[in-house]
This record gives sequence, structure tokens and C-alpha cells, in this order.
Amino acid sequence: MKGYSIWHPCTQMKDHEKYPLIKIVRGKGIYLYDDKGKKYIDAISSWWVNLFGHSNERLNNALKQQVEKLEHVIFANFVHEPALELTDRLLKIAPKPLSKVFFADNGSSAVEVAMKMSFGYFKNKGELRNRFVYLDSGYHGETLGALSVCGEELYSDMYKEIMINNIRVKGPDCFRCPYGKDRDSCDAECFEFMEQALLRHKNEVCAVLIEPIVQCAGGFKIYSPKYLKKLRSLTKELGIHLIADEIAVGFGRTGKMFACEHADITPDFMSLSKGLTGGYLPLSVVLTTEEVYDAYYDDYTSLKAFLHSHSYTGNPLACAVAVEVLKMFEEENVLEKNKAKGDYLRERVMEVFADYRFCGEVRSKGFITAVELVKNRGNKEPFDWKKRIGFQIYRKAIEKGALLRNLGDIIYFMPPYVIEFDEIDRLVDIAISATVEVLGE
Amino acid sequence: MKGYSIWHPCTQMKDHEKYPLIKIVRGKGIYLYDDKGKKYIDAISSWWVNLFGHSNERLNNALKQQVEKLEHVIFANFVHEPALELTDRLLKIAPKPLSKVFFADNGSSAVEVAMKMSFGYFKNKGELRNRFVYLDSGYHGETLGALSVCGEELYSDMYKEIMINNIRVKGPDCFRCPYGKDRDSCDAECFEFMEQALLRHKNEVCAVLIEPIVQCAGGFKIYSPKYLKKLRSLTKELGIHLIADEIAVGFGRTGKMFACEHADITPDFMSLSKGLTGGYLPLSVVLTTEEVYDAYYDDYTSLKAFLHSHSYTGNPLACAVAVEVLKMFEEENVLEKNKAKGDYLRERVMEVFADYRFCGEVRSKGFITAVELVKNRGNKEPFDWKKRIGFQIYRKAIEKGALLRNLGDIIYFMPPYVIEFDEIDRLVDIAISATVEVLGE
Ligand SMILES: Cc1ncc(COP(=O)(O)O)c(C=O)c1O
Ligand SMILES: Cc1ncc(COP(=O)(O)O)c(C=O)c1O
Repeated sequence: MKGYSIWHPCTQMKDHEKYPLIKIVRGKGIYLYDDKGKKYIDAISSWWVNLFGHSNERLNNALKQQVEKLEHVIFANFVHEPALELTDRLLKIAPKPLSKVFFADNGSSAVEVAMKMSFGYFKNKGELRNRFVYLDSGYHGETLGALSVCGEELYSDMYKEIMINNIRVKGPDCFRCPYGKDRDSCDAECFEFMEQALLRHKNEVCAVLIEPIVQCAGGFKIYSPKYLKKLRSLTKELGIHLIADEIAVGFGRTGKMFACEHADITPDFMSLSKGLTGGYLPLSVVLTTEEVYDAYYDDYTSLKAFLHSHSYTGNPLACAVAVEVLKMFEEENVLEKNKAKGDYLRERVMEVFADYRFCGEVRSKGFITAVELVKNRGNKEPFDWKKRIGFQIYRKAIEKGALLRNLGDIIYFMPPYVIEFDEIDRLVDIAISATVEVLGE
Repeated sequence: MKGYSIWHPCTQMKDHEKYPLIKIVRGKGIYLYDDKGKKYIDAISSWWVNLFGHSNERLNNALKQQVEKLEHVIFANFVHEPALELTDRLLKIAPKPLSKVFFADNGSSAVEVAMKMSFGYFKNKGELRNRFVYLDSGYHGETLGALSVCGEELYSDMYKEIMINNIRVKGPDCFRCPYGKDRDSCDAECFEFMEQALLRHKNEVCAVLIEPIVQCAGGFKIYSPKYLKKLRSLTKELGIHLIADEIAVGFGRTGKMFACEHADITPDFMSLSKGLTGGYLPLSVVLTTEEVYDAYYDDYTSLKAFLHSHSYTGNPLACAVAVEVLKMFEEENVLEKNKAKGDYLRERVMEVFADYRFCGEVRSKGFITAVELVKNRGNKEPFDWKKRIGFQIYRKAIEKGALLRNLGDIIYFMPPYVIEFDEIDRLVDIAISATVEVLGE
């Protein structure tokens, strides 16, 4: 027997010959505690899901109260208060005219729902369009539909022979901008590739999928809202849907409730998950428009209904926690309060990393700050990936008490919003000292 | 605005112009209570997920205790007690040599994991096989990968242009057996189609997907274990994987813990969900072998790792509830106790339906009993589907206080295991009277 009985996600299990799995027994606030009593700052909100800290009292209570009433009920023809209230609250904060909410269990499923809904919309109207456009470095999940619009080869290449062939487009790459521009002042010149692709394929494309403002799993690539504005305007003109995948960036991560707001656009579909339940439970939703809904609305025998279901669709436990999350946003003035902390995080990271000789770029948006490490600051040459520099830093940070998971050679900070200023200091200290121990002063 | 803000799964929303959504405010045991105080027997365990009743005290407590400790932690490189205990307990009851457990969030994702793992197994060994074999009437979920092996046109036809093309095989159809045989005494003659397909395509097929013993969503088709025996034996001989989708039939539904046990076979992959958490929370697992795991086990730089992750993979809350479910199986002698009830359910349904003039067949396995209604008992001619006979019966039963969701013109009984004998009587009474009200004596 090699190692463990559990086969972990996103992991070469052989790594665990050297690095045993860490067993977490308890979480509280920004901290995770292992079975040896060691504590870790959860600097990545456990894969970007946690907003208000581990074992949050309000969320715990919401869950405990709901389970006494109704843990679950089939969601076809039935409904319940937590789903109704969640829907109302979501539609209150969502960009208009999003007005319909479809439920699913996880991020990937929500992406697939949006894709299927878009495809079926055209089909129900008698038009066959069967391709989707996606960006380099885009990530939308790993079920085969979602993976077919993944612009990160690490995840998708292996499976290309069992996926449909969608249209990949060169997207913004602001750190290594080929136009020599700056994301804060450019005119999104790089939109030309998207424009060409859409004009060429306009009759076969259902939708464009995009992570608004920040491509997270693809390397925390932050780009100009102008790109989104151009994309929304052209897709509208061509009658192509826009699917905004806000699974990672939604619920305040970029400083606004939804990242689309930076560009003041409304997509045809918006998928949400992760922070939706504050990091408690799998739940996802797709928001869409009356127009899309209407394309499916007909007599039963027309067979135009949108068929996509999961056994646990609309799970009341997860919905009840999500309702409480949205209440906290409303009652605790979260976005406003986050500003100072997000800024402080960026400033502190800038302070210690900006002049570091292996720091290519510090980039930041709202409550996300990332450091891209490079071998050569001058020409931005990356390290040999086989050296696993980022991974080594991650392991060092673990030793020092912070869960600061790398993405390649990018170190990123995406802590729960409840982190305090002195904890930000401590986290940034750990990050720089772990980095220096791996790469030298 | 047409109707509701929530877009429900598996539903033509226009139906709700006539039938308003039912708002459930509470569940207890086998009952669901709506906001008008009316109660319904949950005869389908809320889409086949609930095992021990709604708001079960043991499960409620397990959830409440876990949330005070750890609601969630990233599952890459980290682990926790509920996942460890769940893994141990699953491997203790699973057929040998299944020895590795991979976690996901819902049934569809688990099916996609198994498909990707099988494909990648061959690829890592240098062999390109890119197709999957599936059966008529098979159902494995509705994300696009899972849907590409769906043998029910109702769900898959709409999306065929955005799915890969897998190999569909004519499977068992015992109610209308073309060989004039009987499922209890036949020799699975219908396996010939599978045999031909596998022999013809053996070099391009990664795996065969099957719902062991009962194809549920495809119409509760119950077939002979001999089919499974033949399938296991031929797939082994040809070096093709067998993926047993036990999402609906696992955890005692067919009378054994896993339906594969009826045929005494071990698949290469077994996917589980639904009853895994007793109907509380979305969670799924794929069990597989050391051999599959080994094909991915290598140095990181080989890039052979199995990459598939969901943000909430291994969610501790769901795992804690699942652990309690398995404890209940062990401590409360569930399978043994279920026998008498499952038999009683079948006998009662037989009693009232078997001689009914529109009853084509009553079929049953363990805690599943289904009635297929037909226009003509003699030649088994179905009703015109546009009449929606089954749906009308479902609506009548709702009026009478039972959630007895139809599948086409099939009425099925799949209640929580905690149903009592007199409640079975009541349920069967409702079923027959609803049927007679729709179709006449
Ligand atoms: C046999 C089978 N496989 C897979 C699934 C899909 O599971 P989920 O609905 O959780 O995605 C189902 C659900 O009905 C099922 O019955
Ligand atoms: C932008 C984006 N979309 C989709 C997903 C997939 O969500 P899930 O992991 O819940 O399937 C992720 C998860 O990391 C994501 O970051």
C-alpha cells in the first residue's frame, strides 16, 4: 500500500511520502488547528470559500436552526423558506435585469448549467450554435463541460480527447503585456483577439465564458474593466451570451459585491458558489434573465423545459447558511469595512515584496493580493517549473504557521474578511521569510 | 413576469400556472409539512436520498457537533477526522479490492471523476482510449460528461451537439423482453448486444458505465444479476474498466448494502452519493483500486497526478453526517430490519395493483417497488406520453397527502427505511385511489 486510503484532489499523492497530510481538528476565525496543537492562518480561505472565519457563530446557529426544521426536500415542484429568502436577497444585490435563479451544488455544475441553458436557448429558438469561447488562463471547474472551457493546460490537456472542442482566445496578460501597456491606463488593446474570434465564429457561438476582473486559478491575472465593457458591448451586438463566472470573485472579493460591477455590466448568466455559503457547504446558483427563461417556458409537450437536476438541488441547509451570509453583508457593512483591510494587505505585501529581487509583480484587487515570483525581474523570465519554487515556499509557510498555498510560482493572499491588521502583519512576515528561506535574500 | 423567481430543476415552469409550488416548512420522519399545515408521506425519499427520515435526531446531532469543530478545510494536503472515519467505514463495507476513496460533491461529479480516472489510467500507461460504453435507459447525471453516457433521450437529446459521442448499447428490458424470458430465470441473453459492442470497440473503450441491478431514472428497470456477472467477466477479459454507478441503489436500497453484491462482483470504480449522507447534504465518493491509483502515482514532474477538484471536496459537515449514517447501518441492523418492510411494501402493492387493468407490471427489489402503467395489458402498449397519465396520478396523490413522484407512467415507491407497516398501508391506499381517480376502476 502506497500511502493513504484517501486520494486527495489536485495532488500528486507521492508528494505525501515527504510531506504527511496535515490533520485539522478544529477551525476558529482565521485559524486552523492541527492534531498536534499547531495553528495555521488560513491565508487562502480554504480554496477561496471562507468569508467570515471558521466556525462562525452566526453561521453555525443558522445551520443548527435549519436542521431542526428541514434538512432537505426534493426541489422539483417543492420549495422552502431558505431558498425563497436566498433568491430574494440575491436578486436584490445582483445587477439588473438578472431575475431568475437556478440552483446547483458546486461551481462546476453552475458553469455547466449556464452553458447548457445558453445552448438550449438558441436551440429552443430554432438556432443551432454549439461552441463556447473562453480565455487563456480561464478556469471554470473540472467536470468535462466546464473543463472544455478551461484555458489552463495543466487541468485540461490530459482530457482533450474526451471533451468537445471549444474556441480558445488569447486574453489579457497584463504582467507581460505585449503592447507594453499598464492595466490601469490601457485601453484593453488585447481585446482584438476576442473581437476577431467572435466576428469569425459569431454564428456558431452560444456564449463567452469569463472570470470578471481576476482570473484566479489561472494565476491571479488581474485585468482592466475596459476589457469587460468591450466584451459586453460586442457580445450584445452579435447576439452572443456572456457568462460571468463569479464563483471565485463574487461576494466582495474584488472590493465590490460582484466583480462585474467594476465594469458596470450585466452578463446574461452569472454563476456563483464558494463564498455563497461563507465556506460552509457546497451550493451554487446561476442567475439569468427573463429572456432566457422565456425561451424555455411553454406547454409541457413542447419538450422545451430546461432539464438539469441534482439530487440535492436547493439544499435547505446550505441555503439557510447562505441567507445568513447575505444578512451579514447587509447588517455588518462588510464591503465598506473590508476596504481598509484590503488596502492594508496590499500595502504590507508591497512593502516587503515589491523590491525583492525575485518579485516580478505584486498585483491586487480588493481582498486579493498576489505576488508573482520570477527568476529574472528584468525580462520576467519565470523559474524552471520543475524546481517547484512556489511549492517549496508553501511548505515553508506551513512550517511557520500559515496556509499560503501557491499557484505555480505565485504566492497569493486571500484570507477570510475577518482577519485583523496585526494578523495581516504576521501573515506577510511569514510569507516573506518563507520566500527568503527558499530563494535567498 | 411569468411565475416564480426560482427556476426549478426537471420542471416545465409553465406547469406551475396550474399547480403552485408547494412550500415545505418542516420535515419529520417520513413526513413533509407544508405552510398550510398539510402533511405528505415522502414516498420517494426526496429524490431517493433520504434513508432514516427527515430531521433525524442522530444525524441532526452529528451535524451540530461537527459544525462546532470544523465546518470546512481545503482538502488538498489536508485531512480531518470525519473524512478519515468515513473512508475507513466505506472500505470496510465495500467489495474488495476497492481500497481508495476520492471525494466529490454530487453524483454527477462522482461519475465524471470515475470517467476521467479511467481515461487517464490508460493515458498514463501510454494507451489512448477515448470512449465509454453505456446502456439504453441508463442515467448518470446531467453535467455534460455524465450526460454523454445517458441512455435516456429526454435528458440527453437536447444537448447532443455539445457532447462527445460515446457508445450506446441496447440493455436489458425485462418487462418487454424480446426473448420472451423472465428476469428471474433468464440467462441474460440480452448481453449479446454488449458483447458485440465491446468486442467491436475494445481498443477504444476505457470503461462501461452501469447502474447495477436497477436502472432507476430510466424507468426502474430491474434486471438479472447474471447480466452483471457476464459484464464483469468480459470487461476483465478485455481489460476494460467497469464503473458501477451505485448512486441511487447503494446503501441498502436493493436489499444489499451495494447492488453489485447481488452478482458478487467488484467493479473497478464505484460511485456513491444520495443516501451516503442520509439525505442531508451533497457529498459523493468514488471508490477504486490500488491498481488505478498506482497509474497516477509518480514524481510530481511526471505530471501524472489525477487532477480533479471541487472547492468543497471532502466537506467535513457532510462527512460527519455520512459517518453517522454508516454507524446507524452498523448499530441498528438496518439491512436485516428492512427486509420485512421491503417485502411488505411489495406485497401490498402487488395486492392492489397486480390485477388492475392498466397495470403492466409490478416490479420490486429490496426497498424499491415500481408499477408500470400501460394502456393495454395484453400487448403492453404504453399510454400516449402527451396524456401525462403518471403526472396526473402524482398530482392526485399530492392532494391525498403523498409525494409519489412519477417517472413517465411509472409510479414508484422508495420511502425512507423508517416507514412503518401501517404507513405503508396508507401510502399504497393513496397510490391506488389516486390511480383509479385518474384512470378509472
Ligand atoms: C444512478 C445515478 N447516477 C447519478 C446521478 C446524479 O447525481 P446528482 O443528481 O447528485 O448529480 C443520479 C441522480 O439521480 C443517479 O440516479
Ligand atoms: C472561477 C471558478 N469557476 C468554477 C470553479 C469550480 O467550482 P467547484 O470547485 O465548486 O466545482 C472554480 C473553483 O475553483 C472557480 O474558481
